[in-house]
Amino acid sequence: MNIVNSKLGTPPFAILPCMDARHISGEMPAKASSAEKLARLRAELARQGVAGFVVPRADEHQGEYVPPSAARLAWLTGFTGSAGLAVVLRDKAAVFVDGRYTLQAEAQVDSALYERRHLVEQPATDWIAANLKAGEALGYDPWLLTPGEVERYRAACVRAGGTLAPLAANPVDAIWRDRPAAPTTPAVPHPLEFAGQSSDDKRRALAQRLVSDKLDAAVLTAPDSIAWLLNIRGGDVEYSPLPLSFAILHADASVDLFIDRRKLSPALAGHLGKQVRHSEPAAFGNALAVLGKAKKRVLADPATCASWIFDRLSESGATIQRGADPCQLPKACKNAAELAGTRQAHRRDGAALTRFLAWLAREASGGKLTEIGASDRLEQFRSDGDHFKGLSFPTISGAGANGAVVHYRASRESERRLEPGTLYLVDSGAQYLDGTTDVTRTVAIGNPSAEMRDRFTRVLKGHIALASCRFPQGTTGSQLDTLARTPLWEAGLDYDHGTGHGVGSYLGVHEGPQRISKTPNAQPLLPGMIVSDEPGYYKTGEYGIRIENLIVVTPVHGANTNGKPMLDFETLTLAPYDRTLIEPALLDANEAAWIDAYHARVRTKLTPLVDKETAAWLAAATRKLSSA
Amino acid sequence: MNIVNSKLGTPPFAILPCMDARHISGEMPAKASSAEKLARLRAELARQGVAGFVVPRADEHQGEYVPPSAARLAWLTGFTGSAGLAVVLRDKAAVFVDGRYTLQAEAQVDSALYERRHLVEQPATDWIAANLKAGEALGYDPWLLTPGEVERYRAACVRAGGTLAPLAANPVDAIWRDRPAAPTTPAVPHPLEFAGQSSDDKRRALAQRLVSDKLDAAVLTAPDSIAWLLNIRGGDVEYSPLPLSFAILHADASVDLFIDRRKLSPALAGHLGKQVRHSEPAAFGNALAVLGKAKKRVLADPATCASWIFDRLSESGATIQRGADPCQLPKACKNAAELAGTRQAHRRDGAALTRFLAWLAREASGGKLTEIGASDRLEQFRSDGDHFKGLSFPTISGAGANGAVVHYRASRESERRLEPGTLYLVDSGAQYLDGTTDVTRTVAIGNPSAEMRDRFTRVLKGHIALASCRFPQGTTGSQLDTLARTPLWEAGLDYDHGTGHGVGSYLGVHEGPQRISKTPNAQPLLPGMIVSDEPGYYKTGEYGIRIENLIVVTPVHGANTNGKPMLDFETLTLAPYDRTLIEPALLDANEAAWIDAYHARVRTKLTPLVDKETAAWLAAATRKLSSA
Repeated sequence: MNIVNSKLGTPPFAILPCMDARHISGEMPAKASSAEKLARLRAELARQGVAGFVVPRADEHQGEYVPPSAARLAWLTGFTGSAGLAVVLRDKAAVFVDGRYTLQAEAQVDSALYERRHLVEQPATDWIAANLKAGEALGYDPWLLTPGEVERYRAACVRAGGTLAPLAANPVDAIWRDRPAAPTTPAVPHPLEFAGQSSDDKRRALAQRLVSDKLDAAVLTAPDSIAWLLNIRGGDVEYSPLPLSFAILHADASVDLFIDRRKLSPALAGHLGKQVRHSEPAAFGNALAVLGKAKKRVLADPATCASWIFDRLSESGATIQRGADPCQLPKACKNAAELAGTRQAHRRDGAALTRFLAWLAREASGGKLTEIGASDRLEQFRSDGDHFKGLSFPTISGAGANGAVVHYRASRESERRLEPGTLYLVDSGAQYLDGTTDVTRTVAIGNPSAEMRDRFTRVLKGHIALASCRFPQGTTGSQLDTLARTPLWEAGLDYDHGTGHGVGSYLGVHEGPQRISKTPNAQPLLPGMIVSDEPGYYKTGEYGIRIENLIVVTPVHGANTNGKPMLDFETLTLAPYDRTLIEPALLDANEAAWIDAYHARVRTKLTPLVDKETAAWLAAATRKLSSA
Repeated sequence: MNIVNSKLGTPPFAILPCMDARHISGEMPAKASSAEKLARLRAELARQGVAGFVVPRADEHQGEYVPPSAARLAWLTGFTGSAGLAVVLRDKAAVFVDGRYTLQAEAQVDSALYERRHLVEQPATDWIAANLKAGEALGYDPWLLTPGEVERYRAACVRAGGTLAPLAANPVDAIWRDRPAAPTTPAVPHPLEFAGQSSDDKRRALAQRLVSDKLDAAVLTAPDSIAWLLNIRGGDVEYSPLPLSFAILHADASVDLFIDRRKLSPALAGHLGKQVRHSEPAAFGNALAVLGKAKKRVLADPATCASWIFDRLSESGATIQRGADPCQLPKACKNAAELAGTRQAHRRDGAALTRFLAWLAREASGGKLTEIGASDRLEQFRSDGDHFKGLSFPTISGAGANGAVVHYRASRESERRLEPGTLYLVDSGAQYLDGTTDVTRTVAIGNPSAEMRDRFTRVLKGHIALASCRFPQGTTGSQLDTLARTPLWEAGLDYDHGTGHGVGSYLGVHEGPQRISKTPNAQPLLPGMIVSDEPGYYKTGEYGIRIENLIVVTPVHGANTNGKPMLDFETLTLAPYDRTLIEPALLDANEAAWIDAYHARVRTKLTPLVDKETAAWLAAATRKLSSA
């Protein structure tokens, strides 16, 4: 499942469990058959004078979330997974998906039309090199590929004796007759009490960095970066409160914002202030050209900015400085108000999850609960809480063998009942005005087997090892990943996904640049960064175990004896672990004490927020491990 | 001490302790003063029409070891450290060294002639960009830089408005009147009983890979790769049995070897066989041009091959495939004969070290032993053993505060006595025909303090955590590095060097591609790879602690329960840890059992090889921790 060769796999969260469940949930219009669409696309390609076309999953923002209007891969091929790619040539076509989506692609994509290939092991570049004919041109939409991707596809075309050609108009859009409109959900101000820093201050701080780096401007296309910088939120994509837009930050701290005017209320314009000028997205290209003509030095992030932007800047004469999106790091390091908010959000979220777990303990023994019934109930408990704005990703509600499918998403056809003798895995989270949550608990339905208890306890030991470690400043998440795995390794076990992803503050449930993963990541963990701590174990066809809390990097005062500041983690998530799955003989004294202290904190913090029946259940669920 | 931006720091071993002690030990001829040399160099640069010149430490093989004839940086500037660089311009010059060598450079380099700058924090490229004048050309010797380095220096020159110019003749060589002759130590066959695989088999296996990768030839310039491939050894550099030469491996499994004919005995020619054609190094360039004219596809390693080679290949028409030296990985994965050999070598080496430790226990209490006296005695014990060929690096023999200098090398001026109440650190190793060793022990002289015992035990816990871990195939050394650090991190401590380097089989004591380090390294650990396990702790001005064993990656049979093979380590090094430095209260039961089992193995394996007095000492030194 490790995806390293494709952009679709390079976002920091790509191999984490809840990412895997991200599908396009809306139904695609099924008026035209896949065969008709493919035929129409080929005709359009012929009209534009190219032999083929690359259809990535990404939209113009290169982000994790794609609105229905940009779900071109799903519309064309039927494949609705969160990562993938199609390449269409005159006489053949192929869809590339990774191991998580092999079965789904088989069910969704017509094999008479598309070869189905492995995104990593059988890369599209090899297929292009083998199948494009000499002299042919392969088209691409420069809005949908990054500069690095363009270079890789170009090299593949050269290997075939062909060329790679940017197309001015996306040929899928040209034939997509019933294409949904682009979203126009109004954007709203994000109050200072939650943001903790005014947009003015954020813009001035970033502008100062531009000045000291001798840069005139920075291009921003990542929706969460723009939302963070301007203290605005929106609703253009699912599960994440993002308005889609583009922006240019200037060295004088002013911003040009390119956003559909229907998203802009007068109140929002007032919130943005005079330093933020707004115009329609169509004006973005011209604004880039103006920078170029004035010979400006412009920062652009090759991981998040479309190739189109680089092309426009360089052909108009700008000097491009390639570098990370300047919002990424300050956004990742939460300020005091954001941390206070997320602690509150986690308390409410923990109360809702605890009500759910207590309900589950009462109801599940009957063996009648279903996966969707359970997750609906959990959503209902959450929606009772203050500041609740929706889920932060589609709940993974997996009973028995379904829990072993890391990216599982229950459907009416797939769902199982929660039956005695099985495990139930629930990975869920919510968006609150004051914070974003993401938590996984694994619960025994009836009596668990000795093996289940062994495996659960090993996963818990890894989870504790990460949560309780102390480390010197400068340490990266890659260095800590191993701590969560060694208790499993000792038994010849492992899990095939990352251990932790960054989490936003009422923003994306997945954000960079930090990450806890065996894949190298050069970003040191810094105070205020929130990451998930979610080791797991999956026995295919039988059960899945994952335990996830969010934790935040915290300075350890006075702990350094060698001149190097030390850091550790504060655990944000509040919800009991299932005691019936813990095998105390596998724990050392420190681990048992850690669990008891955590459970005591959960009880203290949550009891005031739950009903009496839940409180009674919670008291029992959080009693010391040494008590019967 | 982390060096990542400069080639001088990128070899896998660059930040490991025993590397740091590598100096040019021969005295440089002191006939001309540094000022005279610099003036003569500037005159020669003017004659060649350039304004400046880059003087790296590397020789034409880009390796760790440099013969006196290639020690240009030391001859010109006086700086004899193992990593560094000088840049000479018309009116100013600078020497760049890393933090390990700041003091040494201050002592060795005339500040009236050279600015002294930090190799990493004040990179030479910035200095060039700031000091080269517009329109000026900076010269370089394309034999001494890799293609990547050339690109970095070129960019720096462009920033200054100047150019970077390859020079056909090295201007330092032109003015170096008493330059030592290039070494001509005869090469000898490395017997099959130690090599374990014939050169014929090695060449055929690599040639098969060339064929399957559609390559016609591979250029080899790393001396240890050529020695491994041809099963030859030599003596052109210190501490490592390397003949210096160049080679081209062809897809028909034949080799063109470019080597000074004085190194070639008739016996060696017979050993090499007809498939290995030999000529003088001067013929190497023409052979590359022949490949180019025949439009061959040629593999060359941009990390080890000089820019000159890439230039020659491309200008003559070859298609260059950039990739790792094909000998590197098979050389790193020791075969059964090499592993059997190294186990024998480690037994002899452990017996010598144990005789030394027993002698030290008897003699040190008098407070009269000196660092050099001790290391001379250790060398004498080692030289008694079969197959002993010399030390594998200059012994680090550090008493008291000198032990805290990670790259310490004792001199008559610096050495201390081994005094009661201090620690003595000895990091040493040898070259045996059947294996290469590298071991560090830290010994209390008299009674250690509680802090020393605490720190030693934490270092030992990290050492054990690495040595005893089990991990899935595919795991890299970077993933395991953290295990050796966490017991120190818990106390707010750390060490500022890598945890382990690869080790050769009667070859370099440092070899890649594997490495145990927090610096990312993508090479999975594979069965047969030998690495060191050497965490430490250094209290500046007081004491140093390091504990080092060599360990080898081993498959765990039947240990995988999820379809993924598991690996662990076999410990090769045999020598007791100082019991008086172990604080049992800090150990858990598994750690104590590990130490007892290791000590029992040391006693069993070594007792037959040592005298009675040493055997008695060893019996006491290796008794169970629980016994008084």
